[in-house]
Amino acid sequence: MGELFVLTEGIIRDLVGFGEAELKAVEAVYPLISDGSAVMPDIMRIDVEAHNGEIDVKSAFLPGYPGIAIKVSAGFFNNPKRGLPSLGGFMVVLDAETGIPTAALFDNGYLTDLRTGLAGAVAARHLARPDSSRLAVLGAGVQARFQVQALRLVLAIETVTVWARRRERAEALARDLSDQLGIEVRATDSVEAAAAGADVVVTTTPATDGFLKQNHLRPGQHLTTVGSDAELKRELGEGIFDLVDVVVVDSLRQSMRLGEARSAVAEGYDPEGLIELGTVVAGKHPGRTSPEQITLCDLTGTGAQDTAIAGLTVQRAREQSRGDVVIT
Amino acid sequence: MGELFVLTEGIIRDLVGFGEAELKAVEAVYPLISDGSAVMPDIMRIDVEAHNGEIDVKSAFLPGYPGIAIKVSAGFFNNPKRGLPSLGGFMVVLDAETGIPTAALFDNGYLTDLRTGLAGAVAARHLARPDSSRLAVLGAGVQARFQVQALRLVLAIETVTVWARRRERAEALARDLSDQLGIEVRATDSVEAAAAGADVVVTTTPATDGFLKQNHLRPGQHLTTVGSDAELKRELGEGIFDLVDVVVVDSLRQSMRLGEARSAVAEGYDPEGLIELGTVVAGKHPGRTSPEQITLCDLTGTGAQDTAIAGLTVQRAREQSRGDVVIT
Repeated sequence: MGELFVLTEGIIRDLVGFGEAELKAVEAVYPLISDGSAVMPDIMRIDVEAHNGEIDVKSAFLPGYPGIAIKVSAGFFNNPKRGLPSLGGFMVVLDAETGIPTAALFDNGYLTDLRTGLAGAVAARHLARPDSSRLAVLGAGVQARFQVQALRLVLAIETVTVWARRRERAEALARDLSDQLGIEVRATDSVEAAAAGADVVVTTTPATDGFLKQNHLRPGQHLTTVGSDAELKRELGEGIFDLVDVVVVDSLRQSMRLGEARSAVAEGYDPEGLIELGTVVAGKHPGRTSPEQITLCDLTGTGAQDTAIAGLTVQRAREQSRGDVVIT
Repeated sequence: MGELFVLTEGIIRDLVGFGEAELKAVEAVYPLISDGSAVMPDIMRIDVEAHNGEIDVKSAFLPGYPGIAIKVSAGFFNNPKRGLPSLGGFMVVLDAETGIPTAALFDNGYLTDLRTGLAGAVAARHLARPDSSRLAVLGAGVQARFQVQALRLVLAIETVTVWARRRERAEALARDLSDQLGIEVRATDSVEAAAAGADVVVTTTPATDGFLKQNHLRPGQHLTTVGSDAELKRELGEGIFDLVDVVVVDSLRQSMRLGEARSAVAEGYDPEGLIELGTVVAGKHPGRTSPEQITLCDLTGTGAQDTAIAGLTVQRAREQSRGDVVIT
């Protein structure tokens, strides 16, 4: 019926990364979420308790975009015992006008990591103080690394502090990032020490205990939370939403179900205070209005980002004639 | 990370079809749905109104099965204007223990058509009178054809009558089936004429008007409804459920949301009367207990069937070393 591009991780990493075009591609989706023109169904989840696994499916149709991504993320937590990574995934892109598959991107979750990192940069561009230079990252996994890389696209980051529950992981990431980026990156012993001197704080953990407390925050900070994307997860302790001056979420519906807004609202925060990132990106809400304000953006991760980053990947694969072509 | 089989429609049609193993593979899933051991999330739907399209995603984890299918069905109803079929789709299979993709089946919807046809045969095997020989098919699309082919696996079908809103389509299908199967197949002018002399009646239309009425049914008949898989669809008129002695559905949850049970219950039918197909297949419910009873099975289509038929396809592809292999 047609030509289908099959792309594997190595090629995909060659095609897209931390560039301005990728950042713009991700940024552009938020106004479409907020003005209701994106068609974005609730996440499909398949719990595979027998194998300590979970599968999430996300998707979105964005008007004017040539493709629709169906994105599958897999987290199988017995994998490390077999020498395999816990997290994986892939995307398939359908032609938005015909529904015919045009590309299969076996990226092992790279595109999800990338678009999530870039979302952090979008949030910081619109909410952090423009002179922010000191970054704190809580968590030391792939997303901690990607947040740092992405934030450098929008802020002149000079120092990074890393905290993780396991000190040795924070130290390993600090060494890696320091070598890779040529900036000062150091591990710290406590959430408080990490956050205290930072202009931007990013949480990237699978925590369920709300480890970031009110007394960890300082006036003028911007906080992005990336970890919470499921009913039981939370990185923010009680009362953080009340302390924050501008509370932004990537998707109201998702954050209320799966993100930090879920627990905050359950504890009494008025959901009327929640602002969608797209309204700020579109200039319909001013975001931060003074250097003293504390701003927050809760990112749950959207199918719209997947459709955008997959679309850019396929466009470049076509332009560069990369990937296998299968006649379907 | 691993070896991934990429299979296209031609190969897939070679690998699986109307065989006893395929029938058993589909039959085996229903007890897993009914005893709660299948993990089957609600269908994800992406409405693409801008292009007159809709995308459904189904999936299921079945205990003991080596793979989990993520199945995408696409219906894009402007396609015929471009000379393309309206319906399409594909499946990706993940390793159930690691979540790593092991196969991508670009079947253009063939496996969905096949497992739906086979589900009709499963229903008839367990509910129709064993001596049923006269079949009526309402609708004249791919699924009408597939229902006839599948039912011949379980019943000694001697005559088939076909009705469709467009008489010429019914006639074309009747000619085709007659040539292909060497049995008497004829088109009829009315639903009543088609159904009146039949032992088994199968509805396969996208109707929304409940065109099959109480007075079309006769004692001893078995009725399978395949069409309704969305909120607005219905093939059965008011009161059919009340007339039927044994009302079976493939999935209670789905039939109540998307199938014939939705409108029947809305019109007063007591959902306590609904029996899941798996309880009949497993012998926990007797199904038909006399030749005079009217039996009904409403099929909405389940991710469990997709996981089963995809698994069999991949198993055979491996055994026969068919398909492209991509290293992901």
